[in-house]
Amino acid sequence: MSYYSAVDVITTKRDKGILADEAIAWILDAYVRGDVAEEQMSSLLMAIYFNGLNDTELNTWTDCMINSGERLDLRGLSRPTVDKHSTGGVGDKISLILAPLVAACGAAVPQLSGRGLGHTGGTLDKLESIPGWRAFLSNDEIRNQLDSIGAVICAAGHGLAPVDRKLYSLRDVTGTVESIPLISSSIMSKKIAEGTHALVLDVKVGRGAFIKTLERARELATTMVRLGTDHDVATVAQLTSMDAPLGRAVGNALEVSESVEVLQGKGPDDVRELSVELARIMLELVDIHVDPAPKLDDGSAYDVYRQMILAQGGDPDAVLPIAQFRNDVLADHDGVIQTIDALDVGIAAWRLGAGRARKEDPVSASAGVVCLVREGEVVSKGQPLFELYADDEGHLQRGRDAITDAVVVGEQPVHAAALLLERVNK
Amino acid sequence: MSYYSAVDVITTKRDKGILADEAIAWILDAYVRGDVAEEQMSSLLMAIYFNGLNDTELNTWTDCMINSGERLDLRGLSRPTVDKHSTGGVGDKISLILAPLVAACGAAVPQLSGRGLGHTGGTLDKLESIPGWRAFLSNDEIRNQLDSIGAVICAAGHGLAPVDRKLYSLRDVTGTVESIPLISSSIMSKKIAEGTHALVLDVKVGRGAFIKTLERARELATTMVRLGTDHDVATVAQLTSMDAPLGRAVGNALEVSESVEVLQGKGPDDVRELSVELARIMLELVDIHVDPAPKLDDGSAYDVYRQMILAQGGDPDAVLPIAQFRNDVLADHDGVIQTIDALDVGIAAWRLGAGRARKEDPVSASAGVVCLVREGEVVSKGQPLFELYADDEGHLQRGRDAITDAVVVGEQPVHAAALLLERVNK
Repeated sequence: MSYYSAVDVITTKRDKGILADEAIAWILDAYVRGDVAEEQMSSLLMAIYFNGLNDTELNTWTDCMINSGERLDLRGLSRPTVDKHSTGGVGDKISLILAPLVAACGAAVPQLSGRGLGHTGGTLDKLESIPGWRAFLSNDEIRNQLDSIGAVICAAGHGLAPVDRKLYSLRDVTGTVESIPLISSSIMSKKIAEGTHALVLDVKVGRGAFIKTLERARELATTMVRLGTDHDVATVAQLTSMDAPLGRAVGNALEVSESVEVLQGKGPDDVRELSVELARIMLELVDIHVDPAPKLDDGSAYDVYRQMILAQGGDPDAVLPIAQFRNDVLADHDGVIQTIDALDVGIAAWRLGAGRARKEDPVSASAGVVCLVREGEVVSKGQPLFELYADDEGHLQRGRDAITDAVVVGEQPVHAAALLLERVNK
Repeated sequence: MSYYSAVDVITTKRDKGILADEAIAWILDAYVRGDVAEEQMSSLLMAIYFNGLNDTELNTWTDCMINSGERLDLRGLSRPTVDKHSTGGVGDKISLILAPLVAACGAAVPQLSGRGLGHTGGTLDKLESIPGWRAFLSNDEIRNQLDSIGAVICAAGHGLAPVDRKLYSLRDVTGTVESIPLISSSIMSKKIAEGTHALVLDVKVGRGAFIKTLERARELATTMVRLGTDHDVATVAQLTSMDAPLGRAVGNALEVSESVEVLQGKGPDDVRELSVELARIMLELVDIHVDPAPKLDDGSAYDVYRQMILAQGGDPDAVLPIAQFRNDVLADHDGVIQTIDALDVGIAAWRLGAGRARKEDPVSASAGVVCLVREGEVVSKGQPLFELYADDEGHLQRGRDAITDAVVVGEQPVHAAALLLERVNK
């Protein structure tokens, strides 16, 4: 075993040097053991923020994260496995639709998910608004449910890439979240450890996403697709717009309801469009030549959804929690909706109680926003633009304050912007 | 009181933004109180390493460091005060000569000093090789000694810029030492808090200094001179070469002996030259028009030295500690000394026991290196180049290993390089 000093590793990266494989392995292992202190890792992360990691360094960094924990073995299932990961947006409930939809077409979708933080929601928080539904499954339960139903959405176990949890908590408080190699290795280490054979990445770009420009989104997508491919996971990225919220509902139970509408062949066009498109890419990756769109209309995707919820203790027919307080935001003059700011809407939903500031905070199942209008729509003064829901009057007011400037009403006609932007293949 | 979040301050600097005065005051205060964690401060320091601090930010940062502790009040003394600070070199015993020399010319020199770390020695470590000498004085003792003798060399009290001690320890383990604004604020906050009216900075450049290029040295000098001037301390910087060791002696008691030689009008030319030149600049700054050189030859500087040592409990006539083990390094062929690497010699002295790796380690008083030759000197095979001293045979061998490549013997004649490089005035 070579001996490294943390300061040498930090200053090497700080001075634009290349970290040896052994140096990366040493520092991540020493960090987990507590021999490298939090303040040393955070200055290394900031140096990586500035100077990056090259392909070899990033592969090694990701390997070490994977090897810090267990790997699920999803070989030998009756169906090919394919997963999706979204980098996070406002109103992004696609996983709830996509997993049963792709399963209804014959693949198995192992959606190991997380919770929301800040203005973006988390898939587990949404499903937990369904009475009885449980997020924690054993590895055997995951395999069995994938084999029998073809879809599972559950918590990523603590055994998968555990160093990522420690690193993520550190990045969160040290201003080192927005680094492409650190984001890529964090996402891909968990997806690779999860054992999926194929993966589609939904890389969000725009006001409501943490990536604001196409250029950065391309860089992140390219990096993650390469990482996946190098680790034998067939990976494709789809860049999608996150300027305006996706669909109408933003909030936990509100998004479950909207997802069920889409699974029943109804619901907002954009949510259906993105679900079908991502399903097509996922199916292509595992060589299943089935058109997913009809599965939404004929009830078969919804059937899988019901089985998936039931298998995890949830009651798909239960009435979802309803907020105690409601308030509508009205248009203050006539005109055309020029823009709806997804970030403002996301922050409003968070303030209303749907989101959390710290990972240990609880969330409200019923709080959130329903967007009643879309970009390009003509509105009259006094017409409702948003419905706000909260369990607490104070939260309702904070939500109103946050959403005040979310909509710009103007004179110009507006054509709806494209939702699907670019695809990045290996 | 404004509320700031540490992550906002970090990401502002990370993204090349300017930190508001209130943000700097808040984060340094919160760091001292423990509300901002070590890992947050270290990622901020790394962001400062990359993106710097502008003049306003650096003034505020330095002010906050000064205001984190007490300020000595040196007004009302019978003599004007002027101090010197060296950025650190190998064999740099100038403070021991300069303080009594300048005092002998009529100024008062409040040398609040530190200890050595790594390959550079510390003034306090050197003086502590004198039996009985004590480094810790009260503020009243400092004032009284300045008034009566005109020279004091003692430990900087823990009350001066205490946040610097916390920041310095953090920088040391997080690869954020080599940042010009961080170095400047660390040095200048202590010198300004010390209350001196004028200050000469000896900025070392070369193999044995932590600054290797003239360009970086100019940048550091300019930054510190501006900081001093903006805080009403008349400040001048002298850039000096630190490619080869200064003088012949490197090690604690060895350097005290060499300093006494210079104070008695003897000793190596380079040590005398630099002492006289720095004394001239110091005296100019406080409008004392006395030539310092004769004070070395007529014994008056040495008299002040003796009074200064006696006042702090030391015996200027005591025999200094002598090492148990000695070994000479010989020339392995005939030729001309092309270079002597100060860094190699400094590391050898450290390995011999004269220096410390961690600030809590003890140092040996007697260990060290005596350089028997200078650059440009003609040597014959078998001629001694260095005397090595240690208290321990193992250390002796480690010192030999470190010094093996310190000297390059070649064919070409070599002219001694200039010691005094450039001066930076406000």
